[in-house]
Amino acid sequence: MESDRPLDALNAARGKRVIVELKNGKQFVGKLKAFDIHINTVLDEAEERENNEVKRKVGKVFLRGDTIILISPE
Amino acid sequence: MESDRPLDALNAARGKRVIVELKNGKQFVGKLKAFDIHINTVLDEAEERENNEVKRKVGKVFLRGDTIILISPE
Amino acid sequence: MESDRPLDALNAARGKRVIVELKNGKQFVGKLKAFDIHINTVLDEAEERENNEVKRKVGKVFLRGDTIILISPE
Amino acid sequence: MESDRPLDALNAARGKRVIVELKNGKQFVGKLKAFDIHINTVLDEAEERENNEVKRKVGKVFLRGDTIILISPE
Amino acid sequence: MESDRPLDALNAARGKRVIVELKNGKQFVGKLKAFDIHINTVLDEAEERENNEVKRKVGKVFLRGDTIILISPE
Amino acid sequence: MESDRPLDALNAARGKRVIVELKNGKQFVGKLKAFDIHINTVLDEAEERENNEVKRKVGKVFLRGDTIILISPE
Amino acid sequence: MESDRPLDALNAARGKRVIVELKNGKQFVGKLKAFDIHINTVLDEAEERENNEVKRKVGKVFLRGDTIILISPE
Repeated sequence: MESDRPLDALNAARGKRVIVELKNGKQFVGKLKAFDIHINTVLDEAEERENNEVKRKVGKVFLRGDTIILISPE
Repeated sequence: MESDRPLDALNAARGKRVIVELKNGKQFVGKLKAFDIHINTVLDEAEERENNEVKRKVGKVFLRGDTIILISPE
Repeated sequence: MESDRPLDALNAARGKRVIVELKNGKQFVGKLKAFDIHINTVLDEAEERENNEVKRKVGKVFLRGDTIILISPE
Repeated sequence: MESDRPLDALNAARGKRVIVELKNGKQFVGKLKAFDIHINTVLDEAEERENNEVKRKVGKVFLRGDTIILISPE
Repeated sequence: MESDRPLDALNAARGKRVIVELKNGKQFVGKLKAFDIHINTVLDEAEERENNEVKRKVGKVFLRGDTIILISPE
Repeated sequence: MESDRPLDALNAARGKRVIVELKNGKQFVGKLKAFDIHINTVLDEAEERENNEVKRKVGKVFLRGDTIILISPE
Repeated sequence: MESDRPLDALNAARGKRVIVELKNGKQFVGKLKAFDIHINTVLDEAEERENNEVKRKVGKVFLRGDTIILISPE
């Protein structure tokens, strides 16, 4: 079956490491734990990165959907 | 049971200390008392922090959901 | 009964003095008279403050919910 | 009867002079003629003010709700 | 009959010349042809003005409601 | 029949060349192919213009409604 | 059959390479895999471009609809 809805792509990434970029320029990388139709997203084992360097470890993090620009596999 | 909705993650953090980052760059840390589907959030025993230093104690605080970027365990 | 919805916390503050911070950096302090699910809020005996000094008395004031960042007991 | 919904406060101000502050920093003063649940607001005999001085008379003016920060009796 | 809904005021201005101010600071003046509940607005014989001088003639123009700050009779 | 809904004006422009101005200051000119109630808009044979000079040809382009300020016949 | 809804134009571009411009000025080019009514969009074999030069390869990427300005065939 060919998936052709955007959330199917997110679903396929569940449990895998993804990069999430926010509107304020911040970047979080972690294991995609959960998301919903608002693109509210939870990452596990997450870290904030700046210029591809780890800025801090945040563990589990809930990101409000409307702050997210993109989600991409690491 | 594996929780896989973002609000389940918030629910698991209820009663625990969390960091809430706002779109204006402010950071509040407190005990997660309540939240709703808009991510309107109430913290108890809360304080505002700047560069990891306590800026002021605010006790209980209601944060409007649309100003929130992320919520993470302290 | 343990209240665990954010608006319950606002309800408990009804009639008490609260601080309301707005997205434009302004701060209003007054008696919480009314609010609704949009967080549209009415304060009585309100004043605008800047750096903790009273800037002007505004009496009763209606604040549109989407301009509000936080509400906290004074 | 105690009014405790925010729009009740606006309703009580109908026909009276109010100050309306907008997100772009502008201030309009006029007689509150009409409003709706979006806080779309119509003022009669209105004027735009800057630093408490009248900048221009606008007569009747329709203000789109989402540009409004606050409404307060003059 | 006393009109007391904001859109009634716009309805009364239909066919008359109005000033429309936008969030980006631009000002359009024209004959109010149509509007809807989102305040999407169509002006006929419209012109863009800057500092009360005509900047360009645009004829008919559709203005998306969420860009509008105010509508006022010319 | 007199059309008095804003989308009627867009409908009348279907198949004709229009100017679309965006919130980021960009301007697209093309043949109005399609639009919907969100003002999502498709132009054919479109070009981006800056200061009335063609900056680039884009052929067919889908413009998300919430980025649009105005649509006007060329 | 003549398609005259904006999403029909996106549908016709499915599987083809498109340029997506975001509100933050970034540009992504890739094969249009999926989209929905919010214009949430998934690109395959995608790359970020700056001034028409490839800045980085991102493979598959989910773009949140409200950050998108335009989508156009490459």
